[in-house]
Amino acid sequence: MKLEELKTPAFLVDLPRLKANVQKMKDRARNQSVSLRPHVKTHKTAEIARMQTAEDSPGITVSTLAEARFYQKSGFEDITFAFPITANKLAEAADLTANLKFFNILLDQPQTFSAVETFGREHGITFNVFLKVDCGYHRAGVDPSKRESVQLARDLADSDFVHFKGILTHAGHSYHCHNPVEVIEIAEQERDVMVQFASGLREDGVVCRTVSIGSTPTAGHAPDWHGIDEIRPGNYVFFDKFQADIGSCQTGDVAATVLTTVVAHYPDHNQMLIDAGALALSKDLGADHLEDEIAYGGVWEHPDLKLFSISQEHGLITANNPIAFQEFPVGSFLQIIPNHSCLTAALFPEYHVVENNRVIDCWIPARGW
Amino acid sequence: MKLEELKTPAFLVDLPRLKANVQKMKDRARNQSVSLRPHVKTHKTAEIARMQTAEDSPGITVSTLAEARFYQKSGFEDITFAFPITANKLAEAADLTANLKFFNILLDQPQTFSAVETFGREHGITFNVFLKVDCGYHRAGVDPSKRESVQLARDLADSDFVHFKGILTHAGHSYHCHNPVEVIEIAEQERDVMVQFASGLREDGVVCRTVSIGSTPTAGHAPDWHGIDEIRPGNYVFFDKFQADIGSCQTGDVAATVLTTVVAHYPDHNQMLIDAGALALSKDLGADHLEDEIAYGGVWEHPDLKLFSISQEHGLITANNPIAFQEFPVGSFLQIIPNHSCLTAALFPEYHVVENNRVIDCWIPARGW
Repeated sequence: MKLEELKTPAFLVDLPRLKANVQKMKDRARNQSVSLRPHVKTHKTAEIARMQTAEDSPGITVSTLAEARFYQKSGFEDITFAFPITANKLAEAADLTANLKFFNILLDQPQTFSAVETFGREHGITFNVFLKVDCGYHRAGVDPSKRESVQLARDLADSDFVHFKGILTHAGHSYHCHNPVEVIEIAEQERDVMVQFASGLREDGVVCRTVSIGSTPTAGHAPDWHGIDEIRPGNYVFFDKFQADIGSCQTGDVAATVLTTVVAHYPDHNQMLIDAGALALSKDLGADHLEDEIAYGGVWEHPDLKLFSISQEHGLITANNPIAFQEFPVGSFLQIIPNHSCLTAALFPEYHVVENNRVIDCWIPARGW
Repeated sequence: MKLEELKTPAFLVDLPRLKANVQKMKDRARNQSVSLRPHVKTHKTAEIARMQTAEDSPGITVSTLAEARFYQKSGFEDITFAFPITANKLAEAADLTANLKFFNILLDQPQTFSAVETFGREHGITFNVFLKVDCGYHRAGVDPSKRESVQLARDLADSDFVHFKGILTHAGHSYHCHNPVEVIEIAEQERDVMVQFASGLREDGVVCRTVSIGSTPTAGHAPDWHGIDEIRPGNYVFFDKFQADIGSCQTGDVAATVLTTVVAHYPDHNQMLIDAGALALSKDLGADHLEDEIAYGGVWEHPDLKLFSISQEHGLITANNPIAFQEFPVGSFLQIIPNHSCLTAALFPEYHVVENNRVIDCWIPARGW
C-alpha cells in the first residue's frame, strides 16, 4: 500500500530507522555489560518489544497493568511494572505474579509495604518488589539519604511475603537539560546515587540483587555504568522532537511521524490547516525550556514550517516567511514529527509500518489500564 | 458497583449533572427558536447523543468520519461532518451520503470544491455542502468580506453535484475570553458576521438555507440568535475546568471527572503522587491565559490542591500550604476535574456512569478516524 492511500491522520513507524535505534541501544548495553530491560510504554506493541529483547535478555518494563496483561498474552515472561503499586492493584499483580516467570512491582511507601504484606499473608503469595528511589527528579521514590529509606529496604528484604529484588530509579530530570553535557551530569548523578545507596544497603547486610536505572537521555549519554545492573530506557525506539532538541538523537533518527493532509490554505494569515490536531499529536509542548515559541511538533523535511496551534482535530501551520503554498497543494501530505512520541503513539489504535515509502505492516498496541 | 471498586484511572460521568447540562441547552435553544445540532465530539457516545437530540431535532455534528460511521450504525440519520473535507475523504463521505438521510460536509477551498465536483460527476452523487466561514477565529473558513467567498458560495449553489446547505462557523475565539461579558461580545460578532454574510448572499440570489453557528461559551451566553437557524455547541454536556474558569458554568456543574488513587506522600516536597498522568488527562493547559501557575486539572472538592506536573502515568499534586496528608491516605481516591473534557474523554476506552456514588452503567465511545 502507498502512504497516500492511508486515511489521515495516521501514525507511521519507519522500520529502518526503528531498527537502527533499537540496535544502537542494544550495542550500548552489551558494550557496557548492563542488562537492557526496555520500557515498552513508548510503543506498547509485541512486535517492537520482540526486536528490543533477546533470548538472554528477555525482560521488559511496562507502565500499566493493561500492558503487563497484553505482554503476558504475547508470550513475554519477565516484566517489571514500573509504576508504584497501590492496594487496589494487588489482586491483578498477584495474578500476573502467578502467571509469569518473573513479575516485579515497586513501592516507596511504608503503608503500601503493609498492604503488600497483608495481601501476601491472606493469599499465600510472595511478590517480587523493587524499592523505588528518588535520584533527584523528585517525582517518586524514597530519599536515599534518609534512615527511613534504609529501614524500608530492610523491611522488604526481611518480609516473608516479599522477594526483595533491589532498587530502581528514573532520572526524569534529564528531560530538563539543554544539551548532552548537562545530560551526562544527570547520568552520573543517577548512577552515583544508586551505587552509593546500594553499597550502604549491602554494608548493612541487606541483599540488593539489582540496581536498575534508566531514561533515554541518560542511557544514550552515560559515560559508564559501573555498579549498575540494568537500564530501562524506552523512548529511544522512536525518539521525537524533544529528544532531538536536547541532543539524544538527530532529527533524521526519529522513527515515528504522523501523516496528515493539507486541508486548506489561508494566505491572508500565512497559515495552512492540517487534519492532525490534539487527538493525533497530544498537547505536549516538547522541550519548551529551549524554545522561544510554542510548537506542537516539527514538520518532516520542512523545519521552516511551524505547527503553532492545535485544537481537537485541527492543526495550524505558519512560517516566519511567506509560505510557498504551491509546494503544499490542498490534498497533499505532510509528516509531523511528534514533540513526545510516547503520548502521540498512545492516541492511535494502530501503527502503519513503512519501508521505502510503502506501508508493509500494521501493528496493534495495548491500550487502557 | 461502588466507585472504589473501579480500576484507576477511570473516567466518570455524573448522570444527574450531565442530564441537567443537556436539558439547559435544549431549553435555551427552544426558548430562542433555533435548532440544536449538538457537536458530539466531546463524548462520542450513542447514549449521550440520544439525550441531546429529539424526534423533532435529530441532527448531530461530528468531528471525524469514524464518528459518522459509529452514529450511522447507532441509528442516527442526520449528521454534519464539521471538519473541512479533502479529496482523500470523499469516497467515505459518498458512502455516508448514500446511507444516511442527511450527511453534510463542509469546505472553504476552491480546489476542494473542484475535487467534490469531479468526484460527484464520476460517481453520480450529490453532496450536501456547507461553506465554512471565518467569523474571527482565524482557524478555518472563508473571509466573509471577500468577493471570492461570495463566488465560492455561488459556485456551490450552482453546482449539479452539490446541494448547497448554507453557511457554518465556529467562534473558537470565545475560548480566549476572560469572562462572560467578553464572551457576549464574541457571540454577537459570531451572529452578526453570519447574518450579514447570509443577507448578502440572498441579496445576490444565492439560496442560503441554513445559518449554523456555535461554541459552548457563545451558546451559553448569546443574548439572542435572530437570523440564526442552528447552533452546534458540544462541550456543555460535561463542561470542564476551562469552561468554569471563563464563566460558562460553575465548577459544580462539571459532569466528567477522572477517578485516581493517591499513590504516595512526599512531605519533604509537599507533594502527593496520583495515578492519573498525561494519558489519563491530556496535557491541555486549560484557561492558562487566566492563570499564573500551570495546572493540569482541578481536584474535585479540594480547590486548594494543585496538579502541577504530569508525565505519562504520573500526576503530582502540591498546595500553597502544607498538605494535610492524613486527609488523603495512600490508597484513597480523588477525582480530577479535567482542564478540557473533550481531550480527556478521548483517552478512555469506556466511561463509567455514576449516580449517588454508585456506578450504574458503562458507555463505550467511538474512537479513531
